[in-house]
Amino acid sequence: MKLHGKHYRSIWLADNGYDVCIFDQRSFPWEVRVATLTTYEQAAIAIKEMWTRGAPLIGATAAYGMAMAMRVNTHTTFLQQVCEHLLTTRPTAVNLRWALDRMMAVLSPLTPEQRVKAAYAEAARIVDEDALTNQKIGECGLTLIEQLYEKHGKRPLNILTHCNAGWLATVDYGTATAPLYLAHDKGIPLHVWVDETRPRQQGALLTAFELQEHGVPHTVITDNAGGLLMQRGQVDMVIVGTDRVTRNGDVCNKIGTYLKALAAHDNGIPFYVALPMSTFDPSLEKGSDVPIEERDTQEVTHITGKSSDGTLQSVQLTLSPASNLAFDITPARLVSGYITELGLKESL
Amino acid sequence: MKLHGKHYRSIWLADNGYDVCIFDQRSFPWEVRVATLTTYEQAAIAIKEMWTRGAPLIGATAAYGMAMAMRVNTHTTFLQQVCEHLLTTRPTAVNLRWALDRMMAVLSPLTPEQRVKAAYAEAARIVDEDALTNQKIGECGLTLIEQLYEKHGKRPLNILTHCNAGWLATVDYGTATAPLYLAHDKGIPLHVWVDETRPRQQGALLTAFELQEHGVPHTVITDNAGGLLMQRGQVDMVIVGTDRVTRNGDVCNKIGTYLKALAAHDNGIPFYVALPMSTFDPSLEKGSDVPIEERDTQEVTHITGKSSDGTLQSVQLTLSPASNLAFDITPARLVSGYITELGLKESL
Repeated sequence: MKLHGKHYRSIWLADNGYDVCIFDQRSFPWEVRVATLTTYEQAAIAIKEMWTRGAPLIGATAAYGMAMAMRVNTHTTFLQQVCEHLLTTRPTAVNLRWALDRMMAVLSPLTPEQRVKAAYAEAARIVDEDALTNQKIGECGLTLIEQLYEKHGKRPLNILTHCNAGWLATVDYGTATAPLYLAHDKGIPLHVWVDETRPRQQGALLTAFELQEHGVPHTVITDNAGGLLMQRGQVDMVIVGTDRVTRNGDVCNKIGTYLKALAAHDNGIPFYVALPMSTFDPSLEKGSDVPIEERDTQEVTHITGKSSDGTLQSVQLTLSPASNLAFDITPARLVSGYITELGLKESL
Repeated sequence: MKLHGKHYRSIWLADNGYDVCIFDQRSFPWEVRVATLTTYEQAAIAIKEMWTRGAPLIGATAAYGMAMAMRVNTHTTFLQQVCEHLLTTRPTAVNLRWALDRMMAVLSPLTPEQRVKAAYAEAARIVDEDALTNQKIGECGLTLIEQLYEKHGKRPLNILTHCNAGWLATVDYGTATAPLYLAHDKGIPLHVWVDETRPRQQGALLTAFELQEHGVPHTVITDNAGGLLMQRGQVDMVIVGTDRVTRNGDVCNKIGTYLKALAAHDNGIPFYVALPMSTFDPSLEKGSDVPIEERDTQEVTHITGKSSDGTLQSVQLTLSPASNLAFDITPARLVSGYITELGLKESL
């Protein structure tokens, strides 16, 4: 999608053909900083420390991490070590395991000599497929938005989203944002309510930034505000992404999603989850089986923003102990449908 | 309640007997700053700019504001002007109007000469009654907590609260916190989940501070987190305050309350609203009739915290436009009961 008027993907090969470029998203929206990763350890750090984030992009970064590792050592033992190492970077997103499993399935049967080239080729396929997948998700969601637009007599639509399931969380288009971008580009007037998404503010920092760069009207709101807006009829639809959907259709997504789903349900507002099929995890029966990442409590007790002198500064928000659970579970009964690259599914 | 080990109320007369002391709560918890108000205009500013806040304390401050005004001019026209002026400071809390109406009812029939003394006496009565009211609310809520403690086999209880309906929002004890303080003081082991309460962080800054000063175990959480904690069985009860309850029992409270009520209902967790009867507004039929204050969007786009050099600093959190609605409506159907100074009420 567009950034400073130029088209970008969120991950690409450097000019040398083997290093990997990503945005260090920790500096968004204040500064657009490209980071060049040269080793799999750097890829692991970039995932763990959230330079790069979002389930599909984590998978793509890990895949390229494995490719970079093959340039150093192509032995099977090392391949397994690298896979284990990358797998430990984030516990919740299923795409990480999915991408690494796929890389392992391609690389394991090969001779060590074949592995470098094959690893880069497979990582590139993962990346290209993700962009195409998200475009297809966008087309599926666009149909829903068009129907809603007709239903509401072609008045401007208000759509709420939580966290960042935007193109910065994927390779391109995003999952939850893909329908928004396609609808906006098609001339359907829409306005997006962007949940700021405490504690890391991915909504206020990333989704809002994406939408601004692409020219989509939007307003940042606190995570507390969606309920009232829904009560007042100021939300026509909710679209969120997800980190993992279990066999029964329960949705693991950024903490707070469940609360918005409850409010949408209580007010008769459609609540959609946009996801690539790779985010569906058939190995888990239900949402309560998903391991929930518990992150550093300093993300709650402190926050970084731009100070009046233009520098980024961390300030302390409380003197008390805090808890920082990163995801919650939206039960399938609250989900109107799943927007996928294979079309709309009422159940998965 | 206790602050730095000493007993305080949140409003009291200065030693000269006519100026009014409050805490400038904007500096909590970083600094305990007492502000001495000498005019009704200062009382209005203290309310409007939230040096002092919380429905009952706003009422008490306005009452003393009127008393201070009488020292300057006791004419009926002026009395009415002052009342109007104080009434415009905050639009949502019904206690403001309630306290001013009560002052007007006492002062209007009097001769101007009688008004100074009568105004101070009535304001003092409002303050004393509020402290007693909150103590009674605490006793009512204590019974509920004791019952829950028995029901759960005397294991420690987890109680969630939103915003600050603590003693700093009232004259003493608080509304939502009064049962917590009384239960803690009685030796019932409890732990409080404190919603940080974006955008102004009254939970992280005030409720957490209050609980810490009084020695009640607590943890600050993002406003997004309560749903997951309830899903996991880590919340036994929710108690919140309110700014206004309408005739049908709908509860207007700090934005985000509705979302917690939905989650409590979805997980079979009792959701109580603690309030003095003065917060009940029989003039309004239902929640959607309550005017919802829309505050400066800078409260969302910026936040103040303590920087590493110890000073309070404001930092910017987003580059995008924002919205800042301050309250939402929890429908009566989601409320398990109303904890009042007249006992527990299932409906009001």
